[in-house]
Amino acid sequence: MQLALDCLPCFINQVLRLSRSIGLAEDVTRDLMNQAWDLMKDSPMDVTPPEVARQVYMLVYETSGLDNPLLDLKREYTDLALSIYPDLKEHVRRSESPLAEAIKLAVAGNVIDFGQSSSFDLMKEIQTVLSATFPIFDVEPFQRAQEEADRILYIADNAGETVFDRILIEQLSKPVIYAVRSEPIQNDATIADAEYAGIDTSAHIISSGANTPGAVLELCNDEFLDLYHGNNMVISKGQGNYEALSDETRPIFYLLKVKCDHFSKLVGVPEGSYVVQLKQ
Amino acid sequence: MQLALDCLPCFINQVLRLSRSIGLAEDVTRDLMNQAWDLMKDSPMDVTPPEVARQVYMLVYETSGLDNPLLDLKREYTDLALSIYPDLKEHVRRSESPLAEAIKLAVAGNVIDFGQSSSFDLMKEIQTVLSATFPIFDVEPFQRAQEEADRILYIADNAGETVFDRILIEQLSKPVIYAVRSEPIQNDATIADAEYAGIDTSAHIISSGANTPGAVLELCNDEFLDLYHGNNMVISKGQGNYEALSDETRPIFYLLKVKCDHFSKLVGVPEGSYVVQLKQ
Repeated sequence: MQLALDCLPCFINQVLRLSRSIGLAEDVTRDLMNQAWDLMKDSPMDVTPPEVARQVYMLVYETSGLDNPLLDLKREYTDLALSIYPDLKEHVRRSESPLAEAIKLAVAGNVIDFGQSSSFDLMKEIQTVLSATFPIFDVEPFQRAQEEADRILYIADNAGETVFDRILIEQLSKPVIYAVRSEPIQNDATIADAEYAGIDTSAHIISSGANTPGAVLELCNDEFLDLYHGNNMVISKGQGNYEALSDETRPIFYLLKVKCDHFSKLVGVPEGSYVVQLKQ
Repeated sequence: MQLALDCLPCFINQVLRLSRSIGLAEDVTRDLMNQAWDLMKDSPMDVTPPEVARQVYMLVYETSGLDNPLLDLKREYTDLALSIYPDLKEHVRRSESPLAEAIKLAVAGNVIDFGQSSSFDLMKEIQTVLSATFPIFDVEPFQRAQEEADRILYIADNAGETVFDRILIEQLSKPVIYAVRSEPIQNDATIADAEYAGIDTSAHIISSGANTPGAVLELCNDEFLDLYHGNNMVISKGQGNYEALSDETRPIFYLLKVKCDHFSKLVGVPEGSYVVQLKQ
């Protein structure tokens, strides 16, 4: 998926919120917003949004001297998710369709996205997701794909969401490789964040090699690409990974919440929708 | 109220939506977004948002050669509102508190705001507003103020919303002067738009003299200012007029929907709230 004009003011908004959240002065924040616009104003449009997002976030990281400014927030969200993990496990265990319910929970976890929202109510969102109608819910193909695959490459998104991924992983029938960002970017999970969520108890964690908030294949390492091109099922979490991979032709299961108007038009479902979509 | 950093990406978004809605090419739209950012990037912050909005919108007007690009949309919204006017009148007539109900309807009309929303469902919004709890609802002071006033200066906002204003005006007990923008800006009402909504049947329509999407007093004409400073009740519709007038000390009744996060923090109520507030 290519960059759209809609992405530009959204990225400026993200710079504003990130700068304020780490306590930068308003004049510094304004200067960062101006720098971000300068960076984007002549950007080619045939790049993916995560590639531009990376550059924009790096401006804030360099100015603040912080290379993982959302670490505390990531830990806080993960702690919160871990605190309800036993209840969520019990919910899945009692469900008539544990796999479908775990898939829905993994989508619910995608609400934890500092980049798009400044506040949220986790438990409320979980209930909303579990009772929502998913306009696209490719669960039977999901079930077949895991039966046919050797392994499952699970491309992660945000820290905290990781705990919900863990619940889904524990329902899967094949070995899972959990691929995270190579470096901190936005609130996306790194290896340390995934371990903190306990993913290592049920999956093998790797770095995708990409430091962008979306698995841009040109940036991914050989280990990731071998798995990606092998006889494995691929699960992709969140809008950023969709944006990076949507022009690919191999089968991919996208689990996400639709978080902006432009993206909703591309997917063909209303903004705010929850989606489990097989694309190939 | 002063310009905030939050306003800048919002204005860029408005340029994007306006440009697309009048059919400008994507490269022209992008150039306009860049021009808008250039215009804002060194702007002093001690101006009101409507003053900057005016400059930003003028970029699109000048490039497109259109000086009233939303005329068709304004007419469409007004026609839609006029089509339900008899039902709304009947609703007010049957109400136990006709004045309070008409005030709520005037607030409901404030949802018609092309600047902030790309789509809306008018009838649904009306029902939502009528059944909503207003966190600020200064109706008794409103009643007292109109009893004590010689006349009522009603500062209008958007076309279409005008029809809802007309319903409130028809419940008021003093002569009403309905003040609109001096020139087309955004979807705000001009004299022609107000006449099209039938306001002239129940109020005297004047131009405020200001061509900004908010009654910036420095730009208003003597006729408006004489009324504003006289022994009259002042009713201000919408966020733009609040932004222009909020530092004033004379009593003003603000009727509006809270349409952005920054504004919601200033007013101290959640985004999306409906407000009838006396400030003085």
